Amino acid sequence: MKNLTFSTFLTSNLSITPSDLDPVLSKAKSLEVRKDAFLLQEGEKCKYSFYVEKGLLRQYMLDTKGKEHIISFGPEGWIISDRESVFFNQPSKFFIQALEDCTIKLIDDSLVRLISEKVPSFVDFNTRLLHNHIRALQNRIIQLMSYTAEERYLEFIALYPDIMLRVPQTMVASYLGIAPESLSRVRKDLANKNFNKKHT
Amino acid sequence: MKNLTFSTFLTSNLSITPSDLDPVLSKAKSLEVRKDAFLLQEGEKCKYSFYVEKGLLRQYMLDTKGKEHIISFGPEGWIISDRESVFFNQPSKFFIQALEDCTIKLIDDSLVRLISEKVPSFVDFNTRLLHNHIRALQNRIIQLMSYTAEERYLEFIALYPDIMLRVPQTMVASYLGIAPESLSRVRKDLANKNFNKKHT
Repeated sequence: MKNLTFSTFLTSNLSITPSDLDPVLSKAKSLEVRKDAFLLQEGEKCKYSFYVEKGLLRQYMLDTKGKEHIISFGPEGWIISDRESVFFNQPSKFFIQALEDCTIKLIDDSLVRLISEKVPSFVDFNTRLLHNHIRALQNRIIQLMSYTAEERYLEFIALYPDIMLRVPQTMVASYLGIAPESLSRVRKDLANKNFNKKHT
Repeated sequence: MKNLTFSTFLTSNLSITPSDLDPVLSKAKSLEVRKDAFLLQEGEKCKYSFYVEKGLLRQYMLDTKGKEHIISFGPEGWIISDRESVFFNQPSKFFIQALEDCTIKLIDDSLVRLISEKVPSFVDFNTRLLHNHIRALQNRIIQLMSYTAEERYLEFIALYPDIMLRVPQTMVASYLGIAPESLSRVRKDLANKNFNKKHT
């Protein structure tokens, strides 16, 4: 399995060696959480960005009827956060929950400051992470506004190649904003198309 | 009418006087655009964030069937941009178009650097603007995933109190991600509710 520790994430994106970084990262808080545990619940203030070293998170919200809507999944190497809640110190509208046993690095302002002192280029990298987040959110809006169920599913498997194997189909449908039956139909149609391509 | 020049926007958010700021802002590019003109078209690289001093912009995209989907409106005091395209220097998926004759301030990296040199607190303010953008995008996703047509409409008139009077209803429906007939129904239902409240 690919090494996706927070240390590797930083050394592969910044010009710093693990041995230079390790003294800083030794001060970073880690968290081991069990499947189903919550890192954030609606109404709480989100204090961290969660970097997933191992396992899988989901960020979701409940509508007024109590239905779940999954905003994002966070497998290894992803950062999940409610940046609005962190930055503006406001109660979150989201839940962040472990879907598998997880190892998480907690990123907060003090850690960002520590790393920035040691590695000045981290300031720019952090701005890049913010823009990456904006890109992801913009793409999510485009998808929700204008993609067919099939287009949503194809983008989903491109973005999260192994999540279909790790979560129930109902969660994938919730992320895609379509009914579970529509997801089954899309998958069946695509399987048929591929079968026809191979046999004609 | 409220004064929403870029200068006022900055002086009301930063501790700087207009007279200190004016020499810097004299270097900022302004643009007068006529109704229907495009500031950005799909496939082009977005070079600026557009601060609206007067008039109204819309940011929209076309789906594969050629249907328009409005991502956001930009009345006076708003910033409209494809930050993904600007930051990553990538072709945009969006159009940005004037819906009225507009006066626009063009914000780019060199202007941000100039202002930051004169007003160091602008660096933090700029980070705040990024988080404001993230907040707006998150709220848009929540709305698209989980709000009923009525909830979307109520949020819309809270966010953009006067836009209903400035654009055709079809554009509002496009922004809300609902059919124009659904928007008419929602408005009629709300009018009836208010009538009943007043008369019972």
